[in-house]
Amino acid sequence: MRHHELLARLAQPAEGKIVLLVLDGVGDLRTAAQFRTPLEAARTPVLDELAATGALGRIVPVATGVTPGSGPGHLALFGYDPASPEADIGRGILEALGLGLELAPGDVAARGNYATADAAGNLTDRRAGRIPSEECRRVTARAAAALADLPGGRVELVPGEAHRFVLLARGEGLGAEVADTDPQALGVPPLPVQASAPAGAATAALVAAAVARIEAAIADEPKANRVLLRGFSRLPDLPALPELYRMRCGAFAGYPLYRGVASACGMEVVPCGKRIGEILDAVAAAWERFDFFFLHVKQTDQAGEDGDFDAKVAALEEVDAALPRLLALRPTVLAVTGDHSTPVPMKAHSWHPVPLLLHAPLAFVDDCRSFGESAAIGGHLGTFPSRELLGLLLAHAGRLQKFGA
Amino acid sequence: MRHHELLARLAQPAEGKIVLLVLDGVGDLRTAAQFRTPLEAARTPVLDELAATGALGRIVPVATGVTPGSGPGHLALFGYDPASPEADIGRGILEALGLGLELAPGDVAARGNYATADAAGNLTDRRAGRIPSEECRRVTARAAAALADLPGGRVELVPGEAHRFVLLARGEGLGAEVADTDPQALGVPPLPVQASAPAGAATAALVAAAVARIEAAIADEPKANRVLLRGFSRLPDLPALPELYRMRCGAFAGYPLYRGVASACGMEVVPCGKRIGEILDAVAAAWERFDFFFLHVKQTDQAGEDGDFDAKVAALEEVDAALPRLLALRPTVLAVTGDHSTPVPMKAHSWHPVPLLLHAPLAFVDDCRSFGESAAIGGHLGTFPSRELLGLLLAHAGRLQKFGA
Repeated sequence: MRHHELLARLAQPAEGKIVLLVLDGVGDLRTAAQFRTPLEAARTPVLDELAATGALGRIVPVATGVTPGSGPGHLALFGYDPASPEADIGRGILEALGLGLELAPGDVAARGNYATADAAGNLTDRRAGRIPSEECRRVTARAAAALADLPGGRVELVPGEAHRFVLLARGEGLGAEVADTDPQALGVPPLPVQASAPAGAATAALVAAAVARIEAAIADEPKANRVLLRGFSRLPDLPALPELYRMRCGAFAGYPLYRGVASACGMEVVPCGKRIGEILDAVAAAWERFDFFFLHVKQTDQAGEDGDFDAKVAALEEVDAALPRLLALRPTVLAVTGDHSTPVPMKAHSWHPVPLLLHAPLAFVDDCRSFGESAAIGGHLGTFPSRELLGLLLAHAGRLQKFGA
Repeated sequence: MRHHELLARLAQPAEGKIVLLVLDGVGDLRTAAQFRTPLEAARTPVLDELAATGALGRIVPVATGVTPGSGPGHLALFGYDPASPEADIGRGILEALGLGLELAPGDVAARGNYATADAAGNLTDRRAGRIPSEECRRVTARAAAALADLPGGRVELVPGEAHRFVLLARGEGLGAEVADTDPQALGVPPLPVQASAPAGAATAALVAAAVARIEAAIADEPKANRVLLRGFSRLPDLPALPELYRMRCGAFAGYPLYRGVASACGMEVVPCGKRIGEILDAVAAAWERFDFFFLHVKQTDQAGEDGDFDAKVAALEEVDAALPRLLALRPTVLAVTGDHSTPVPMKAHSWHPVPLLLHAPLAFVDDCRSFGESAAIGGHLGTFPSRELLGLLLAHAGRLQKFGA
């Protein structure tokens, strides 16, 4: 029996509210050049007090040594096995969620690139010279105008950054089994749109018709005169958190990708701003409406990606200063952790385990006196897979029955 | 390959004897109100000396956040995956084991309640007013007298506490696929006895005939005039420990449930008393007859369930004082741990990891100087699933060959 199925079998309603505060990319490194992590350097008296009266530990997002993207990192925090086939979030869906598109279960999304081909139809630039986003919006408007009344469904185009866009295919019976059209080479034409399995045949026919119209409409563009499509996918068919665990789940995230992943897990997405203060405004206003609150703070990850130590420290101190407002709501269980590490020295996501702070009435008060990567090594919670965290939160909220007699 | 199959493939005979001393529910909590655990507060010089010269660690009975019942907690200690379907111990079997009944592999057991119905046959009390156990024995004797010469097998009734009893169906070809007859509601009659799958048809027919006779025999009782049956089950079909690991296994437990679980795993159950001194009397007398000794001490769990800190400390000190007698027998491997935590502040089983002490010639002497929950966090053995413990004990006894060349 898989872990979330075991938990779902034991789930029972209870009064206790759970807050999962995700500081994106919070985990960081101590190296010869960076002898304290941002979390250890930041002045965080509230987090430290929570650590002193709670328990620390560490979580491993996907597997030892595996660096997660944002999708798998969050799916694991929500109790799914991010490496299982049903939790596979395709590139097209992730791009669409990242642009803030509202997706329905049957929609098929692909990531698109504008590209340049010569008069013979052979590719000369697979990214259309990285046209400005403004250009991308203009070209996309031209292309989209050609897509009325397609046979077999609707196709929508949404411009992204630079040469990127998202193609959405909507209609009945559209599978995602469509092969990439990007040949990954120059001097050859784009590949035809073809199904990779019978279930994708209708989608391939619809998209092939759309691509023909798009490329006719933009044939006179000097750079963006062809399209390449990759990562055809649909929303993962995940069992919904509220049904699995019999609790009302609210997502409070200021950025589209995280709202999208939460929505794919069956959470209600509550509109809110991007900074912790704005997020807590929304949480306070919705406090009675939910049992489980997913709060997402992005600035820690952005600072890590930028390699900006001071900015990461500042983001953590901003969170710490805001925490008393969250504590005033009196959650039964509060967990503070991340979806992955984004160490400043790496300017990228990494595989390093992520520190975890758990504050709850039945948390074992271990010897950790501050919240940080080094302290967490010796915490009572130990080191365990991120996908097991949700079970721990449910247990501490009284939401799991005993297993067996 | 599942873990116990891997171990079984590597198992070899050896001289070294293994003692697994289970202090039921030993794990406990540090909270703001209880700043030391009972194990940390108890005066346990022998356990502390063993810790100082051995290794500590922690075990997780079923999964992170999952609170185990006694059955799953012990099956994990015996090397089985307690969440696997074949390790599922049904409610009826557990109740029968708890009453100390000897069960054969084909027996079907159900948990019974006496109930009260009105003249129209509708339930007015699903627990027959919680009649005294003395009444239960009297009514059960009346009912059992009506069960001679049933077609298709034998049915036995064994009285339990208050309104509870166990029904045992014995004969050839009796499956456990029979639905509960308890409607879980008042104002309606009990449900008829029906198979939930074809394999249970013969059992359902036998039990239906028995229930008709029972209810005719007790129809004039003012309270206990109907029966409700739940949790039809058979002994789990577990591969036996002695065959898996090529060692003679003896169980020394003073309470029926633990003797029953050990028996279901193929151990020989040796009669003994309930306290550690009596248990060690039996162990010493049988020392030459076994290679693996499972010793079960119940008082730690009872004290935890009662929320009695002092009683839990006293139970631990009683064990500690008796340990020199066990050490005088010179076991090669001694492990002291629990099937789960039963924290005093919770008065119940919990999901918290369980401290583990391992003393053996090849145990890594870590820096732990006393046996307790906090010390165990930093122990050499780390934190791992309970079902992996047996492999560690076999290894330390020289009972596992190298895997591969």
